Amino acid sequence: MIIETIKWEHNCLRLIDQTKLPEELVYLECSTPEMVAEAIKRLSVRGAPAIGIAAAYGVVLGVKNVEGTIELLAKTRPTAVNLFWALERMRRCVQAYKGNRELKEVLLEEAIQIHQDDQEKCKKIGEYGSRLIKDGDTILTHCNAGALATGGMGTALALIYVAHEQGKGIKVFTDETRPLLQGARLTAWELMQAGIDVTLICDNMAAQVMKEGKINLIIVGADRIAANGDVANKIGTYSVAVLAKEHRIPFYVAAPTSTLDITLKDGSLIPIEERAEFEITCGFGKKTAPEGVKIYNPAFDVTPNHLIKAIITEKGIAYPPFDYS
Amino acid sequence: MIIETIKWEHNCLRLIDQTKLPEELVYLECSTPEMVAEAIKRLSVRGAPAIGIAAAYGVVLGVKNVEGTIELLAKTRPTAVNLFWALERMRRCVQAYKGNRELKEVLLEEAIQIHQDDQEKCKKIGEYGSRLIKDGDTILTHCNAGALATGGMGTALALIYVAHEQGKGIKVFTDETRPLLQGARLTAWELMQAGIDVTLICDNMAAQVMKEGKINLIIVGADRIAANGDVANKIGTYSVAVLAKEHRIPFYVAAPTSTLDITLKDGSLIPIEERAEFEITCGFGKKTAPEGVKIYNPAFDVTPNHLIKAIITEKGIAYPPFDYS
Repeated sequence: MIIETIKWEHNCLRLIDQTKLPEELVYLECSTPEMVAEAIKRLSVRGAPAIGIAAAYGVVLGVKNVEGTIELLAKTRPTAVNLFWALERMRRCVQAYKGNRELKEVLLEEAIQIHQDDQEKCKKIGEYGSRLIKDGDTILTHCNAGALATGGMGTALALIYVAHEQGKGIKVFTDETRPLLQGARLTAWELMQAGIDVTLICDNMAAQVMKEGKINLIIVGADRIAANGDVANKIGTYSVAVLAKEHRIPFYVAAPTSTLDITLKDGSLIPIEERAEFEITCGFGKKTAPEGVKIYNPAFDVTPNHLIKAIITEKGIAYPPFDYS
Repeated sequence: MIIETIKWEHNCLRLIDQTKLPEELVYLECSTPEMVAEAIKRLSVRGAPAIGIAAAYGVVLGVKNVEGTIELLAKTRPTAVNLFWALERMRRCVQAYKGNRELKEVLLEEAIQIHQDDQEKCKKIGEYGSRLIKDGDTILTHCNAGALATGGMGTALALIYVAHEQGKGIKVFTDETRPLLQGARLTAWELMQAGIDVTLICDNMAAQVMKEGKINLIIVGADRIAANGDVANKIGTYSVAVLAKEHRIPFYVAAPTSTLDITLKDGSLIPIEERAEFEITCGFGKKTAPEGVKIYNPAFDVTPNHLIKAIITEKGIAYPPFDYS
């Protein structure tokens, strides 16, 4: 069973609170744009496509002050471009509004459309990308680019879900993905829900697992892709890409085209969010670092295009040079 | 101040309980070889040289059954060769025993000698290795090869301590080193005790920090070195070495010659300990992975000699080819 992360129900945005997984499956009911903004900031909902969808529904909830709501939601997180893309769609919808029916109804239709489009895109990404997966392959992934990160079956994990449905006997390794352990808490959990063979490792074990010949291909998601194909994604992705090159393992990125930011020439222009120190110093509920230690906590990194074998989108598979694709 | 990890006092082996750091500085008093074996297994004392020294004192405590004690201690951990080297020194001491005075006294002298030799070796390693460090350098290290891992000022960290004493304005980045966070809990702590500028990052951030041009050199310890210069060290070391190559940053290993195992032609022959699943699934008191998920938890990896610029020992700096050195 592939889980459903985002739902619009009884005039509320209903989200799985991902900070509680895997211990508890708890839902948040957001009835105001402030609650949605807080859920995005706290990472109760995360993953570039899911953030975009949640923000779109957030605009519906903020219909009485659309401009203020869009401004509020745009400030929640800086790196995932889908957030700004979805808010821009909602803004255009307001601009095109002719007053012939309730604005809220029009905005809700648009948000549902964004949500459904994403489901469809995930499926397409899965279908295109699954062609790259052979029977018996073992796939490494980093962070969570699954159903929990999207409105559908995920981006990177969509390939895995489709390949699994096709009866290919695949296995998955997931990096735990410090500091917030999205690989351990989310990817391992949702793959297990779907009955897929998954093994959890610490981030620093990926090189060893590759060296042991256990990995056939690597697939990750993206938070923003520059015009030249440089990819911003969860911190540690760049590390995995370098290790893939050393071990001659193909490294793929899966993302909807809404992740593309053609206004940025290359990845050096992508803003990288730095997050709070406590994520590293006491992320497990216990203090695991000395009081007062300096911390560096970038939430994302940029993988240069030359380390990426292909980018899988809902429109097909793009090979280098990506600016041409 | 450089801290003192191991002390022989009032007929007991007094150890810092490293599982309690950095929250509490607690000492374990081991009065039996079983207590020493347990301390090694639980990682209350860890780091290849420190394990060897603790085991030597453990043999003193087990004087009534030396053979059984050596057997017990040899079974505690498989990878660090200094353990077997120290136990072998104690065994030879028993074999050479002529009965002219108390065996315990003779064994204690030998254990103290091993301990003092290690202190001296650490200092020498620091002096030789510090020549590789320039004023203003920023150094990355992984795991803990410091005072907490030895009977003296450490191996990898000895270079840092000596360079700091020489007034070189150095900075250090330390990987947190999952699953047991020796970098966060131990390296950051002991460097802060000594007044050295240290920044903590997650393991998966090392590549990004290197890409940002922040790191001038990398220095790690070793648990066992094969005859060809392949180095077994804490899991994640191999990953750092590959990333160093990609970023053209010199990667150094510091270890006493007792870490060398010339009976092994290359690193593929070094036994690699696999440790318990809970270290990854709930290492810090909170469950962070789904119930029943498969885990792979190798405690060490092997860095091939071609990724190592030099190995710093108490006898000098060895450059490739290492089998000749």
